[in-house]
Amino acid sequence: MPRLAIIGLGLIGGSIALTVKRARPEGLDVAGYDYDWDAVRAATKANALDHGARSAATAVEGAALVVIATPISQVRAALEEIAPALGDGAVVTDVASTKRDILRWAVELLPAEVAFVGGHPIAGKEQSGFGAADAELFQGKPWAITPTAKTPESAIRLVESLIALAGAQLLVIDAEEHDSYMAAISHLPLVAATALFSLMSGSRAWPELAALAGPGFRDTSRLASTNPDLSHDISVTNKENLLHWLDRFGEELRRWRRLVEDGGEELAKAFYRTQTERDAFLLNPPKRQDQAPPTDELSSGERMLSFMVGEYIVRRRKEMEKLFESRGSEGDGRR
Amino acid sequence: MPRLAIIGLGLIGGSIALTVKRARPEGLDVAGYDYDWDAVRAATKANALDHGARSAATAVEGAALVVIATPISQVRAALEEIAPALGDGAVVTDVASTKRDILRWAVELLPAEVAFVGGHPIAGKEQSGFGAADAELFQGKPWAITPTAKTPESAIRLVESLIALAGAQLLVIDAEEHDSYMAAISHLPLVAATALFSLMSGSRAWPELAALAGPGFRDTSRLASTNPDLSHDISVTNKENLLHWLDRFGEELRRWRRLVEDGGEELAKAFYRTQTERDAFLLNPPKRQDQAPPTDELSSGERMLSFMVGEYIVRRRKEMEKLFESRGSEGDGRR
Repeated sequence: MPRLAIIGLGLIGGSIALTVKRARPEGLDVAGYDYDWDAVRAATKANALDHGARSAATAVEGAALVVIATPISQVRAALEEIAPALGDGAVVTDVASTKRDILRWAVELLPAEVAFVGGHPIAGKEQSGFGAADAELFQGKPWAITPTAKTPESAIRLVESLIALAGAQLLVIDAEEHDSYMAAISHLPLVAATALFSLMSGSRAWPELAALAGPGFRDTSRLASTNPDLSHDISVTNKENLLHWLDRFGEELRRWRRLVEDGGEELAKAFYRTQTERDAFLLNPPKRQDQAPPTDELSSGERMLSFMVGEYIVRRRKEMEKLFESRGSEGDGRR
Repeated sequence: MPRLAIIGLGLIGGSIALTVKRARPEGLDVAGYDYDWDAVRAATKANALDHGARSAATAVEGAALVVIATPISQVRAALEEIAPALGDGAVVTDVASTKRDILRWAVELLPAEVAFVGGHPIAGKEQSGFGAADAELFQGKPWAITPTAKTPESAIRLVESLIALAGAQLLVIDAEEHDSYMAAISHLPLVAATALFSLMSGSRAWPELAALAGPGFRDTSRLASTNPDLSHDISVTNKENLLHWLDRFGEELRRWRRLVEDGGEELAKAFYRTQTERDAFLLNPPKRQDQAPPTDELSSGERMLSFMVGEYIVRRRKEMEKLFESRGSEGDGRR
């Protein structure tokens, strides 16, 4: 039976397990592993898994698709651990917020017979852990994938079918591009919000400031509540891009400072223009020109299963051939 | 019958009218004026007013308490227009986001017999206009007042009773202090969010960035949707403080830039510390040491009315005395 294996059962990994199991693709075996056994137990109890594994390597045995959903700082170790246990033709994806380093690690650590498709569901919550997992988490949200020229088309289709199953909006993008865009639209806001909050909370007037804080400050500083390990991992794995956008933001702030200092019609116009553009963004976000086809063409668990079954059959055939060639010398059937 | 007059029936003025009328202090006459007659009609229809006035001057005739709830840029004109129509002993307050300039205008333009108590309810919505007005808008929100050493105690008590009626948290603060604190906790976030959004929307990659934007970017940039006239007025009337905090934010961003560049334990610690502090802020905001007494001591429309009736009686007595002294030479009974 083809297997989907999920390594890391926190908010994202747990939500993927829930969304797949809810679609009930018959004959699909969902296996999961987390270094925290409580997460495995909770996921099993919530019927998000067919079985919980005692190690990442055990979880991926015989898997057609593997989703690595650990924190970024643990992806490398996860790749090292699962590499020897992956079957030929297995497809590995991940969910990390930065992609370039992970792609490099995958090329370095995974066997040539395994395809890697970097992934990034752009969805989240303030809470974390399996307790916050939600089958609806990805509904309507962007989910980027970062295949390379060498990625087999079938591997891309398989990951796309998972994204369609989750109801997310597929975005196909180069890994370097992904990291440079995310530095702007996600990682800069993270550091800016954190710096804004730390400036306030570090001020001698903080008690007075906090008493006067309204919802505007709460929203603007919300990202300062991001899991600090995630913030750190993002900053480390996307450092150059983030530094670039921090510099550009510094320049933009100085431009606004000059506008405020001059205080005339230019300032009024700049406020007016920005408000108009943000309203337009909320009503009708600009579209990418090279946007991927709508994912509703691929919309069933059966579709995902068919890709997985395809992979499974191909892999089993290869394994049989190998067995035949080697006359049973490596014949444990699992590789 | 003592009168409460509200000049400007947008989100804030309209919400004040609704919250006062809901408390139904018997024998209180709520009059309102807006340059947009549709707002007056809507407020009258919603039973937020006892009567709509055709001018600001007419609205404040005989009023014990006047609330100026126009945009900041129109406060000066409103003060000029109502000044000749105000009775002795009348109390005027406002709701503007900056206080120093308005206090100066009040001293300059209002008669000596009229008391001014600057006010700032720190509450809002993305929508504006009477259509968005809500009797619950101020519930639990801070509402700062900025009396001076010369402000009569009775005038302060009257404005406090309005704040108590609205269910807001009273904060007594010096006008200069108010503006300096608001520059940090409100006006800097406004300009920072606007600069963040304009940096993104002005980028050549904006279509790609917008497609990848998640809820974090939406929250961080939300204040860029603030009414641009309000943003402009705030920046102009609180320029020096805002420039100061823009500079401090620039320094703080450079500190974070260095932390990101070094990328070590210091960065991890800084993220950890800021997240912890924000969580503490959300759970239990630090208290001002000189915090005003809890406003639940003052909690009924009757209480506000008693202050207003007090003012009314005192004023009527003064008017009678004047009439008596002048033997009818200025005896129109209104001033």
